[in-house]
Amino acid sequence: MSNILSKLVTLIAMFRHWLKKGPILLVFVGLVAPVVAADDALPSWNDGPSKSAIIEFVQLVTDKTGSRYVPAERRIATFDNDGTLWVSHPFYAQLAFAMERVRALAPKHPEWKTKQPFKAILENDQATLGKLTEHDLAEIVMATHAGMTPQQFEAIVQQWLETARHPRFKVRYTELVYQPMIELLEYLRANGFKTFIVSGGGIEFVRAFAAKSYGIPRWQVVGSSIKNKFELVDGKAQLERLPEINFIDDGPGKAVGINAHIGLRPIAAFGNSDGDIEMLEYTDSGKDAHLEMMVHHDDAEREYAYGCDTKVGRLCEGIELAKERGWQLISMKNEWVRIFAFDK
Amino acid sequence: MSNILSKLVTLIAMFRHWLKKGPILLVFVGLVAPVVAADDALPSWNDGPSKSAIIEFVQLVTDKTGSRYVPAERRIATFDNDGTLWVSHPFYAQLAFAMERVRALAPKHPEWKTKQPFKAILENDQATLGKLTEHDLAEIVMATHAGMTPQQFEAIVQQWLETARHPRFKVRYTELVYQPMIELLEYLRANGFKTFIVSGGGIEFVRAFAAKSYGIPRWQVVGSSIKNKFELVDGKAQLERLPEINFIDDGPGKAVGINAHIGLRPIAAFGNSDGDIEMLEYTDSGKDAHLEMMVHHDDAEREYAYGCDTKVGRLCEGIELAKERGWQLISMKNEWVRIFAFDK
Repeated sequence: MSNILSKLVTLIAMFRHWLKKGPILLVFVGLVAPVVAADDALPSWNDGPSKSAIIEFVQLVTDKTGSRYVPAERRIATFDNDGTLWVSHPFYAQLAFAMERVRALAPKHPEWKTKQPFKAILENDQATLGKLTEHDLAEIVMATHAGMTPQQFEAIVQQWLETARHPRFKVRYTELVYQPMIELLEYLRANGFKTFIVSGGGIEFVRAFAAKSYGIPRWQVVGSSIKNKFELVDGKAQLERLPEINFIDDGPGKAVGINAHIGLRPIAAFGNSDGDIEMLEYTDSGKDAHLEMMVHHDDAEREYAYGCDTKVGRLCEGIELAKERGWQLISMKNEWVRIFAFDK
Repeated sequence: MSNILSKLVTLIAMFRHWLKKGPILLVFVGLVAPVVAADDALPSWNDGPSKSAIIEFVQLVTDKTGSRYVPAERRIATFDNDGTLWVSHPFYAQLAFAMERVRALAPKHPEWKTKQPFKAILENDQATLGKLTEHDLAEIVMATHAGMTPQQFEAIVQQWLETARHPRFKVRYTELVYQPMIELLEYLRANGFKTFIVSGGGIEFVRAFAAKSYGIPRWQVVGSSIKNKFELVDGKAQLERLPEINFIDDGPGKAVGINAHIGLRPIAAFGNSDGDIEMLEYTDSGKDAHLEMMVHHDDAEREYAYGCDTKVGRLCEGIELAKERGWQLISMKNEWVRIFAFDK
């Protein structure tokens, strides 16, 4: 920020006597615009340590004359999705989707009326739902995400994204993407970065909205997955989604997933929970200049406030590590002018 | 091709009377250039059914006024690597690499002197090497490709690519990429396509040269893989390559790999062997206009001629399917002006 200001002051001084001449003013405006752009690209960020860290890092790695210059082909930035790019409370959007699917499919599964965890979903039994285990979640995913082609699955997700509403904000989930992060994605891309999503959520779930919501193409989404089977049906080749876990892109899996899909160590990584620690450690251990940040949910009024006290996007060990390793915590409360595009 | 010619004739007719005037000639040249470009982009292709099919397909899907227009975000083209983009005879480059690694690592493995398939490699026992099974190959890969980080593995591959020479052509393997296919990759990209490699070979092996040889970034390479494990060593996060198969990107695996990495059905696919059939079938079954081609190795003089009579890049069932499905066979002998950049 101060860097930008000093450049502006110098420019204004240089052009001072020209300012008296009308037509030259246009030239001046044209010259200054690109310098201001870097800063203006993040209008939803308050001046503060996070915004400074981002801008200074981008200047560092894009400065061809500097010793920490990183060529564009290695400017890889990875973003967790739930809680980092969009709301993940009171529960993950994909879980809301899966529960909706359980209700829709229930007529074909009379046995669910007496079988957990399906019974709890159908009866909206909050006490039981609050205690779902990993195994319960896997069972819900298997029952609702498999047995169709990837194209059919995506059409169902698209339909749900159009019709479902968040329980607190009463808007579509895609309206609950964080505006400061959208600006950050665009700012990084404008500076030659390739942006990737590295989500614990389902890769095909996230792909259904990544291009439209984040400007990220489908092949730049990394996520958890179930297996697929190739088959010919009436001479047409298609894939069928199987009720079998293929890969869990969470914790250490995030570093593995990054290597499998991207094949390069990121130089910038953004998360919000303990499940992102290994992704940040992997980024932190590279030879190039690197940046690691954690979105800190500390704004109960405009969004949510949580840390060690939740199972959804728990950030606990990560807070300590951030201090130790010099990772930047982004205070949603203090550093974000607005959280959603619809905020003033 | 005839389309291009008819456009040229029309343009020449339109500008005929202007041609008498000197300065206007420059304007004419400027106007015609873009039309010719599509054709000139493939100088290593003889006029023939394959070149026509490529150009007509690209014109079809990029013509905004046409009914078969495909928006750029769905213009996905996938390419097999061995035998499609570079030489795969007399054996796969990656096998040559693995055998070289066996020789380099032999001092640390005295047991290999008496243990097959390692014994055959160390003794250059061609009779036994000609009969290697899939299981033998897997054992060779496990013994030579694991136990290090992806970065260390890539450095070894890079070193090998610099020093190894092809047994017949006596040049680096990267000099044995097919010049007509390089032009095709560039032509497709110039027309808004995203180009991907979908190889039965190792994803990290192919990534070591994909950017430099093909202009394809690492995250647009799909291939077979072994597992990786995340670990912290002296506080540094790294991955270790494990001697355990993760995914075989061959046959039906190619359609599965495409879905996992790209998340879209290709509209153009290029292969050369029966292992590419399912990739072509998957492409062939899409709703958009699509193109499927097989490089046919029928030029023993300039490269190799093989079909049903080889285990390396066998094309047998695929020939029949190509006729049935209307897939274009590319005759290397008749349709390629040159095979390698060093050919006249």
